[in-house]
Amino acid sequence: MAITVVGSVAYDTIETPAGKRERCLGGAATYFSLAASYFTDVRVIAVVGEDFGRKQQEVFNARNIDTRGIEHTAGKSFFWEGSYLENLNEARTRTTELNVFAAFEPKIPEAYRDSEFLFLANIDPVLQKRVREQMPDVKLVAGDTMNYWIKDHRAALLDVLKGLDVLLINDTETRMIAGNNNLVQAARAVMGLGPRFLVVKHGEYGATLFHGNAGHVASKTFKVPAFPLEEVVDPTGAGDSFAGGFFGYLASQSDLTPASLRRAMFYGSVMGSFTVERFGTERLQQLTRQEIDERFNLFRELTHLD
Amino acid sequence: MAITVVGSVAYDTIETPAGKRERCLGGAATYFSLAASYFTDVRVIAVVGEDFGRKQQEVFNARNIDTRGIEHTAGKSFFWEGSYLENLNEARTRTTELNVFAAFEPKIPEAYRDSEFLFLANIDPVLQKRVREQMPDVKLVAGDTMNYWIKDHRAALLDVLKGLDVLLINDTETRMIAGNNNLVQAARAVMGLGPRFLVVKHGEYGATLFHGNAGHVASKTFKVPAFPLEEVVDPTGAGDSFAGGFFGYLASQSDLTPASLRRAMFYGSVMGSFTVERFGTERLQQLTRQEIDERFNLFRELTHLD
Repeated sequence: MAITVVGSVAYDTIETPAGKRERCLGGAATYFSLAASYFTDVRVIAVVGEDFGRKQQEVFNARNIDTRGIEHTAGKSFFWEGSYLENLNEARTRTTELNVFAAFEPKIPEAYRDSEFLFLANIDPVLQKRVREQMPDVKLVAGDTMNYWIKDHRAALLDVLKGLDVLLINDTETRMIAGNNNLVQAARAVMGLGPRFLVVKHGEYGATLFHGNAGHVASKTFKVPAFPLEEVVDPTGAGDSFAGGFFGYLASQSDLTPASLRRAMFYGSVMGSFTVERFGTERLQQLTRQEIDERFNLFRELTHLD
Repeated sequence: MAITVVGSVAYDTIETPAGKRERCLGGAATYFSLAASYFTDVRVIAVVGEDFGRKQQEVFNARNIDTRGIEHTAGKSFFWEGSYLENLNEARTRTTELNVFAAFEPKIPEAYRDSEFLFLANIDPVLQKRVREQMPDVKLVAGDTMNYWIKDHRAALLDVLKGLDVLLINDTETRMIAGNNNLVQAARAVMGLGPRFLVVKHGEYGATLFHGNAGHVASKTFKVPAFPLEEVVDPTGAGDSFAGGFFGYLASQSDLTPASLRRAMFYGSVMGSFTVERFGTERLQQLTRQEIDERFNLFRELTHLD
């Protein structure tokens, strides 16, 4: 079943201990789409500037991603520059230029309207809500957000949370939304705000799925580790790739079952682990489903008793 | 098969967001012994002062722990005071009084000499080595250490590592010993110094077992999460309890196999999770094997695909 994703398509300049790349193709919607494209049909809603050319378009085309919802306007695309020199787990932002993104008004192509899955990547919750409202018939809605919206746009964010089935955020964001330092309590509080499923991403420590509030928390929790890597070249996009693998896998399944959710968590972690092996989207652009499933099996080895 | 453990038996004054306890029974050897006692026979080597009375002795007796190797001397027992008010994952030490521990000269009772398992808890590596040398025939030796010994007693520590089969330390200690920030590379380096097995404890994120250097690292790695808890009352002793569950389970098995190591990791995490549910050793003193195995099964639920 097809996923529509709304979010940023951008250029990133990234510095890590492994080196530096200038203006690589990035943005949450880009990472998400590429990762999800290995599992299902993906349709993107975004805005880009005149600097978005044939080479960038080709990245989407090569993965059969529908880009009719990417609006091209005058000006420059969203640009982010950051470094991970001190801490591979957290980017230090040097520059953020919204550019054409500042006036982003998501428009949903007619051809996208039968999408059964919707992913609201990290953008202004006001826009997230507007997209959500225009696609009332989707089967499952997932979303992401970040500290900036949690701190300064809380009312709008809470409004979005009400309409989400799945929220994918990190530890800090979970604690921040709930105002509670205990992750289990915080997760419970966040789920009280709307989402039936909460995926908390722990960076190099993997991720936890919380599903349901009844009974002992452990029976409503599923944990997946991160893949042990000799070298993390560039952590940019790991979380969005996780979301793409997670949601893409779910969209490829006929039913949302405990078993499919568990496998989706594994696929999320698998896709995140591929992304960080190279700069930007390099690795995500040239995977095969076989490589993905081989790594899925390694994840099983990594965690299962027998 | 019996385990001999050498380490501290101490008094701890602990403050956490859940409250404060004055002078509870603590020390690495205490937590380790209690945790391991649910799996196998345990024998302790330690030193205590005149403040160690019948009540403390009773804690060991109740779990059938052999304390003939606990030396009673004039003076006061090792004392530690710390708080976790700012960060539940890391203690802030307020006071450390070595007291009788300053002149600790571990003596191994004749009755301990047939122990097939030896655990060198976190003490001066010079003493760890001395104990190791006096028990040349043990089948498996595991040990722990801490930042202080890594930084200021490196030569002695490296000497101990050569004689270890299993080293159990945390992320920071692993990176510190190796001088490498990538955990996988650091683990590889640490294993190059002696231990065949390395267990890296990640606090609230569980633990990783590294076993063997050949092939892709993922096939030589096993990950276990920490148990999701609504409230961590007191993190003191979690790592030592992990070690006790891990090593205690291994000592209860006839063979050291990949399967027994995996189960040992689960039992380690189970015992650590019980410890932090109450102050000091309160929870560890009154478990049943049935409770332990029930939680073991919850851990399986928490991580397994089907």
